[in-house]
Amino acid sequence: MTSTENNNSLAQTIDKLQFNTDGLIPTIAQDFESCEVLMMAWMNRDAVIETLSTGRVCYYSRSRQKLWRKGETSGQVQTLKNFRIDCDADTVLLLVEQNGVACHTGRRSCFFEELSADGSAKIIADVIKDPKELYRK
Amino acid sequence: MTSTENNNSLAQTIDKLQFNTDGLIPTIAQDFESCEVLMMAWMNRDAVIETLSTGRVCYYSRSRQKLWRKGETSGQVQTLKNFRIDCDADTVLLLVEQNGVACHTGRRSCFFEELSADGSAKIIADVIKDPKELYRK
Repeated sequence: MTSTENNNSLAQTIDKLQFNTDGLIPTIAQDFESCEVLMMAWMNRDAVIETLSTGRVCYYSRSRQKLWRKGETSGQVQTLKNFRIDCDADTVLLLVEQNGVACHTGRRSCFFEELSADGSAKIIADVIKDPKELYRK
Repeated sequence: MTSTENNNSLAQTIDKLQFNTDGLIPTIAQDFESCEVLMMAWMNRDAVIETLSTGRVCYYSRSRQKLWRKGETSGQVQTLKNFRIDCDADTVLLLVEQNGVACHTGRRSCFFEELSADGSAKIIADVIKDPKELYRK
């Protein structure tokens, strides 16, 4: 039973998603090849539609309060491979092809700090792109 | 520079975390071996402390408004392997050893539904444990 398929319109399908009171849904981006979790961000309804329609990942920036086409400044674009939702339809998991790095610090993944029970914190990933290069016009 | 280490107390380290206005932080659980993303849930400060201190994953249930020791009813416990935070310290990534299944539907992962640009939705994972068995006392 892994191939059950419902054919709704895109609008009907998106109506199933449980956006929060701000109209947003948390969205995890995972590298489709290495399976590394790259980042977590938020989408609104328009970002979901744009991402599914164009195949290029678009989030909603809560700080800038507008659509955020990932890589529009830095060039570190994400190409959509799969769009998944969870059992409560309140979280999105994107499998993506990440051009370059996902993190604004120049690391591949945003999850580069590891905490231990004794309170120690360790940086576990190298900077592979100079952030100054990423955001230079 | 992958081994930078700061030695703070656990309380100091947790003070760095950016909990939202409800006192919660989104938390992704990933299988430490297969790298499959299993689920997304929320933690409050007490859940973070308990998870790091005991090595058994504890979330905060928004519906029940109390600590949720994953597996306390179903037996599908998560054992902590690594506790990571992202660059903004506003999302947690747990690498876990999942006993059995993460999803209340009896599937290994909660992310078992795939959406397409045409609005079609496909179930991509099998039920491997009968949910009736999971929640029978």
